[in-house]
Amino acid sequence: RINSDRLWLSLMQLGQIGATPKGGVCRLALTDEDRQGRDLFIEWCREIGLEVRIDEIGNIFARRPGTDPDRRAIAMGSHIDTQPTGGKFDGNYGVMAGLEVLRTLHEHGIQTEAPLEVIAWTNEEGSRFVPVMMGSGVFSGAFTLAHALAATDTQGLSVGDELQRIGYAGTHPAGDVPGGMFEAYIEAHIEQGPILEAHDLPVGIVPGALGQRWYNVTLSGMEAHAGPTPMDMRHDALLAAASLVTKVNQIAMDHAPHARGTVGYMNVMPNSRNTIPGSVAMSVDFRALDDATLLSMHNALHSHAELLQRHDSKLSIEIEQVVYFPPCHFTPTCIATVRQAADKLGIGHMEVVSGAGHDAVYVANLAPTAMIFVPCKDGISHNELEDAKPEHLAMGADVLLHAVLQLANG
Amino acid sequence: RINSDRLWLSLMQLGQIGATPKGGVCRLALTDEDRQGRDLFIEWCREIGLEVRIDEIGNIFARRPGTDPDRRAIAMGSHIDTQPTGGKFDGNYGVMAGLEVLRTLHEHGIQTEAPLEVIAWTNEEGSRFVPVMMGSGVFSGAFTLAHALAATDTQGLSVGDELQRIGYAGTHPAGDVPGGMFEAYIEAHIEQGPILEAHDLPVGIVPGALGQRWYNVTLSGMEAHAGPTPMDMRHDALLAAASLVTKVNQIAMDHAPHARGTVGYMNVMPNSRNTIPGSVAMSVDFRALDDATLLSMHNALHSHAELLQRHDSKLSIEIEQVVYFPPCHFTPTCIATVRQAADKLGIGHMEVVSGAGHDAVYVANLAPTAMIFVPCKDGISHNELEDAKPEHLAMGADVLLHAVLQLANG
Ligand SMILES: NC(=O)NCCC(=O)O
Ligand SMILES: NC(=O)NCCC(=O)O
Repeated sequence: RINSDRLWLSLMQLGQIGATPKGGVCRLALTDEDRQGRDLFIEWCREIGLEVRIDEIGNIFARRPGTDPDRRAIAMGSHIDTQPTGGKFDGNYGVMAGLEVLRTLHEHGIQTEAPLEVIAWTNEEGSRFVPVMMGSGVFSGAFTLAHALAATDTQGLSVGDELQRIGYAGTHPAGDVPGGMFEAYIEAHIEQGPILEAHDLPVGIVPGALGQRWYNVTLSGMEAHAGPTPMDMRHDALLAAASLVTKVNQIAMDHAPHARGTVGYMNVMPNSRNTIPGSVAMSVDFRALDDATLLSMHNALHSHAELLQRHDSKLSIEIEQVVYFPPCHFTPTCIATVRQAADKLGIGHMEVVSGAGHDAVYVANLAPTAMIFVPCKDGISHNELEDAKPEHLAMGADVLLHAVLQLANG
Repeated sequence: RINSDRLWLSLMQLGQIGATPKGGVCRLALTDEDRQGRDLFIEWCREIGLEVRIDEIGNIFARRPGTDPDRRAIAMGSHIDTQPTGGKFDGNYGVMAGLEVLRTLHEHGIQTEAPLEVIAWTNEEGSRFVPVMMGSGVFSGAFTLAHALAATDTQGLSVGDELQRIGYAGTHPAGDVPGGMFEAYIEAHIEQGPILEAHDLPVGIVPGALGQRWYNVTLSGMEAHAGPTPMDMRHDALLAAASLVTKVNQIAMDHAPHARGTVGYMNVMPNSRNTIPGSVAMSVDFRALDDATLLSMHNALHSHAELLQRHDSKLSIEIEQVVYFPPCHFTPTCIATVRQAADKLGIGHMEVVSGAGHDAVYVANLAPTAMIFVPCKDGISHNELEDAKPEHLAMGADVLLHAVLQLANG
């Protein structure tokens, strides 16, 4: 069993770097705070004799050798960058749980056949630099190193320059793993949703992650005075937008249980209380477990927009898809290993599909992959109020330990 | 008949003061541009021998004496302040049409039994200083002079100080009319709506103005991650707001033909595309011809908000009424005089209810009042694209001339 107190203490210590007044963390990718967090992580890795390598996009890999020279590594990890008003657990938990697994093995002098690694991926959050999940994206070849290095923040500073500045522009070729690609990758993470808490269960076994289609939608009608313009002579862009918001929700309900549909962003023009809105810009975020469902949702959105335009000749609606992530199915053998570990430990669990993107989604393109979820308070993340219970975090790390041992010695 | 060219030329000359690149006018109340506009208007009044007086809130009254010392004045007018991106006609037309009536009488040496006045009311638009319709509001006693003088703009400058600065802090007591309150007041104005244009008619006879109830609505739900939060565990403030937007429109349709319901303003928090909105602030603008209808609309809005809250225990909706204007019915005898003038001149007309507030609405509390509408292009106002046809403006002014002659000699 892992050491629950040590895991909690490490999370709290790491959470000091970039700590915010409300108990959260602001440790944006490639800032001085990120450098301090990385330095501390590497210091802890070296304390237990791990070999550290940094790749060209700044991903940190810390390896514990195995006894069998023919085995490829079993990897664990996540990220330690945060949202501007983020919490202490999102990402950090997966890295600290991986470290705790290696500390436990080190403490007990336990050798494994396969080498083990714990990874801190660069810029998962994508708050400062897009694309999100940048380190694992470059590692998996989803986009090029050059593309990632050229990304700039709102100040115009680039990923390449900022990596140099904080001393994390590594030399190890991105995507290369000594001895060959991982035999398996397991990422522990807070759920970021309310399901485990609602079921009062400490561990989620993650079969995969929802596919995503994101859109920018622009509605144009006719700006006019709210007083003298009769109801039947209006071309109200916000009224049409409201119908789309309602429909986006309905579309997700129609594709239950795993579909999601969200309008998170809306900008109304000219946004004056006695002027009928002339135009509205809004986002649509669709998620589903399979591509056929995503496509059906996509089509339903377009049909509804066409219907609205047929009913109002002066209304135009433009829909542009701006993000696409295919649905991700983690590896059945890997998922089974995680489930068996939980069963063996007598830890209650259930299946929880990941609604959010994770580094594991990219790694799954290269290696057998699974994820372990633990509950977070009220399902809240990306918020300084993010919280989790020490006993849940410990149980997730115990499951990780036993799954990794099973994989490394199997 | 009035001189159509002279009327048009005066509107164009006045429109030079504060002219914008797109052909509109920016002449906010009590700015240097407003002073220049006022100076020009007074210069034109003095050219035809009118007696000018300025009252304590800066309203300008220009009088042409009558032959009967026992008669009280017949007044015309509107305002010459504009929106920040306003047009050349809104308000300006009513003042220039009144001036053109007096110029025509002067030119032809026609005396009237009752004195005639043309008025430019201070700060009708309310863009720089609230409340709107300030000059006529103080004149009619809707609010106090002290309240109006203390109003400040976003720079912190007050109405009182700005009136002093531009030299229009008059000494005539607000609300006083020499010889007694007006026998009648007639305001000519562009329609600001699409009805006359749709019916291809040059003149609108205005039976009254819609009553108004304005609200600030705040919806609070629960901010959460758009990916991991299942549809049936959400408390989406924007989804509820969309339902309210749809309902506001439906409520107005249910109270056809004269009711209006508009959501012109909406602010979504935190407005991030992969976060379920936690709160939404929005406006509601209800208008109707009678108070019973307004109340029924008010009740329907509250019922719907209660329904939404009953369906989602974590959703709260606060509705605060921030503006109330009672419905205004202009004076039947005055309205009839305007209609007879149009008929006598053979000018096509129809009834058009005013959907917007006007200075005439306040004056109607003190004196028999009517309004004359003329079409504006596409029903557009409060926009640099605001436009109107010289022949329509001339016909409206002709109707004004004949109505005023009828009232002054009747
Ligand atoms: N884990 C996470 O919050 N990813 C952000 C991208 C998403 O919305 O799925
Ligand atoms: N005439 C006019 O635009 N008044 C503004 C107030 C309103 O919305 O009615």
